[in-house]
Amino acid sequence: MAKPESDLMDKIVSLCKRRGFVFQASEIYGGIGNTYDYGPLGVELKRKVKDAWWKAMVTERPDVVGLDSAIIQNPKTWEVSGHVGGFSDPMVDCKKCKARFREDKLADARCPEKPSKRPGECDGELTEARAFNLMFKTNVGPVEGSGSVAYLRPETAQGIFLNFKNVLESSRVKPPFGIAQIGKSFRNEITPGNFVFRTREFEQGEMEFFVPPAENDKWFEFWKAERFDWYQRLGIRPEKLRLRTHDDDELAHYSTGCADVEYEYPFGWGELEGIACRTDFDLNRHSEASGQDLRYFDPETKERYFPYVIEPAGGIDRMALTFMVDAYEEQQLEKDTRVVLHFHPEIAPITVAVFPLVKKEGMPERAEEIIEGLRRAGFSTFYDEKGAIGRRYRRQDEVGTPFCVTVDGDTMKDGVVTVRHRDSMEQERVPAAELAAYLAEAVRSWKRPA
Amino acid sequence: MAKPESDLMDKIVSLCKRRGFVFQASEIYGGIGNTYDYGPLGVELKRKVKDAWWKAMVTERPDVVGLDSAIIQNPKTWEVSGHVGGFSDPMVDCKKCKARFREDKLADARCPEKPSKRPGECDGELTEARAFNLMFKTNVGPVEGSGSVAYLRPETAQGIFLNFKNVLESSRVKPPFGIAQIGKSFRNEITPGNFVFRTREFEQGEMEFFVPPAENDKWFEFWKAERFDWYQRLGIRPEKLRLRTHDDDELAHYSTGCADVEYEYPFGWGELEGIACRTDFDLNRHSEASGQDLRYFDPETKERYFPYVIEPAGGIDRMALTFMVDAYEEQQLEKDTRVVLHFHPEIAPITVAVFPLVKKEGMPERAEEIIEGLRRAGFSTFYDEKGAIGRRYRRQDEVGTPFCVTVDGDTMKDGVVTVRHRDSMEQERVPAAELAAYLAEAVRSWKRPA
Repeated sequence: MAKPESDLMDKIVSLCKRRGFVFQASEIYGGIGNTYDYGPLGVELKRKVKDAWWKAMVTERPDVVGLDSAIIQNPKTWEVSGHVGGFSDPMVDCKKCKARFREDKLADARCPEKPSKRPGECDGELTEARAFNLMFKTNVGPVEGSGSVAYLRPETAQGIFLNFKNVLESSRVKPPFGIAQIGKSFRNEITPGNFVFRTREFEQGEMEFFVPPAENDKWFEFWKAERFDWYQRLGIRPEKLRLRTHDDDELAHYSTGCADVEYEYPFGWGELEGIACRTDFDLNRHSEASGQDLRYFDPETKERYFPYVIEPAGGIDRMALTFMVDAYEEQQLEKDTRVVLHFHPEIAPITVAVFPLVKKEGMPERAEEIIEGLRRAGFSTFYDEKGAIGRRYRRQDEVGTPFCVTVDGDTMKDGVVTVRHRDSMEQERVPAAELAAYLAEAVRSWKRPA
Repeated sequence: MAKPESDLMDKIVSLCKRRGFVFQASEIYGGIGNTYDYGPLGVELKRKVKDAWWKAMVTERPDVVGLDSAIIQNPKTWEVSGHVGGFSDPMVDCKKCKARFREDKLADARCPEKPSKRPGECDGELTEARAFNLMFKTNVGPVEGSGSVAYLRPETAQGIFLNFKNVLESSRVKPPFGIAQIGKSFRNEITPGNFVFRTREFEQGEMEFFVPPAENDKWFEFWKAERFDWYQRLGIRPEKLRLRTHDDDELAHYSTGCADVEYEYPFGWGELEGIACRTDFDLNRHSEASGQDLRYFDPETKERYFPYVIEPAGGIDRMALTFMVDAYEEQQLEKDTRVVLHFHPEIAPITVAVFPLVKKEGMPERAEEIIEGLRRAGFSTFYDEKGAIGRRYRRQDEVGTPFCVTVDGDTMKDGVVTVRHRDSMEQERVPAAELAAYLAEAVRSWKRPA
């Protein structure tokens, strides 16, 4: 019997490489563990996912502002946040071959010298477990040594807490309000990652929403619902999503609640985004450690207090993977099989492809004119004049292009083009002069086929 | 006599902090050298600069595709590129206090123990100069040691060369064509940086344009002109820009030409962007070192060859700084002084601010309706109901908002709002229903005032 689910991941990985979504990083040098590069279509997908996130979380919200903090901060940041002391996995070493393993994953590990055996089952003896910190270390400044050690941030959130006072003083915000940020974080993960689901270097979309403590529960409910809904608005099938509330014993000691938006991946249910109640833990700690008063002063009540924090935090790479996995379909048609990605048009790498029916009679030139107009109107476009029209459609289906426009003999006469829809494969005749407006409306009104 | 030019940098730095463009990173912990965070307005400025770059370099060009490669690549990359061996500054150490100095900047340096003296003028003796590599080092994987050393990329360009073959095989491109990328790079700079002009962590916009060798000179001329022009299209004053061609003795040994777009900063002329002829040096080296054939096969001529490369490479942070410096003006008006940033509307952090004239008679609600519509139409907006209208205009002038819209008594009667233009301070009456279209046209047709 086939294993359809693991097959699906293999198909996605293969499609990603073949069509230029995702490549193994440093592939010509044998790669580097758990690291990937985004190709021409992947970078557009990721850009659009980030734009959609920023639009929903910042641009369209009067109560949220953006931030972009540095990856390498003063190392004190990570002492105070608890990452230097506590952000670690338990590791054991083989005393013979010096290989290192995660203690909680020993059952799945293999001895690198005798791959038929588990660690410790060879002649080697394993050490006691020791904490291995997941932060990447480096040295800043001209001298290496303990005085110059710095870390690559393992999360973007702390950059927001460090700037809380700066934002209060420079922007006209008051709780409840949020500070949002998109940026790279780094974790020296040992566990293999299921493609771009878990990578050493990854992009996060995090927002810290600061609220009066009494409003904590209300805003926790709000952000759980809002983030769960966002994925569905962008086309993810509801039956593949669930909201899982953490049990008390899963919570950090300072947290009053946490829930994950989970997706059913081919390898099982996994976290897509977390919505966490961080209380006033971080502001409190940074206030104490820095000697700066990071409380908010309410000019109306004359009260000074640490706001509580609700944090929706998702991984952008994981979002991109999820949109791909969820969009993927193999359709059995009468004569063949069609691979199609049902991307929401807002995140599809190419929004509209333009084809001249044949390479003569002025059609390529007319198609170029049309594509030029669409580019200027802000559409992501692709021009293709090679092969039969049917094959060109299929090539676009496979990368999720929602609309294909064909210039044919009639266009040259009456100025009308054919718009072909990816999901229904239906075609419509549209005057070229109305094309941009027609497509803008089609993007807006798109619904995922049942 | 005042020093107007250094004053200008001080004013920019102060405005950046006060209004939330740029903050010192980790400020509450005393900062960390040459590192900055972008606040609510700064992150929008930087996003828009990046979007404008991507639009001009990728979206609007049929001959360029995008890429997003990882920051930490296989370390072999940097051996082959020459960065492990040659990307360094000459440093000398004080044998007494162990302080380290750049040999070519000794004249400006001070002994950390006796700040009245230069290094070597105290009792200490200086060592011979040694090469100090500018790449940040880290360790990847569970074991520290030489086998796990990796580097934070000092440029994004190499990620493009590593993926040359992947892009050729997955995308329908052929020389002349480009691969463009925006992303962070890291250099362990010792030199102080003039605010965000030179920082340890910075964002680059780089494009490698691959051409048949015979077309090298033609495309070098094309990209020099195009990049020089791009800054002017986005509002930079032509008299502050120049294109400086490098002398032969400034060129890398493999390069056939290089030119810098330079801007006249308050601290003197400085490089804003470089356009370099890299020949086939990088593809050649990576081909040899990896054993992969990175030549392009031309199906028409049946020829296999290494394309030559023209590289326009600019720093995004430096671009953002340049747009700020260039936009800044203090205008002497009849009764007072007005600080105004003449940003091109495409890169202004806020495109339109909306004010109710007074906080009653339904005006705040009407203003909120209008702003909601503008947000949905994709405009960056700001709502302000505090203080006199004149003061609200000035607050927006200072952050470069090109358009302010006021809802007044007449609006409630006839549906017409007042649009006030930042540069001319002129006001026009516009029907609220036509506002979005009016503003879109005003963005498109904006010209910098003489």
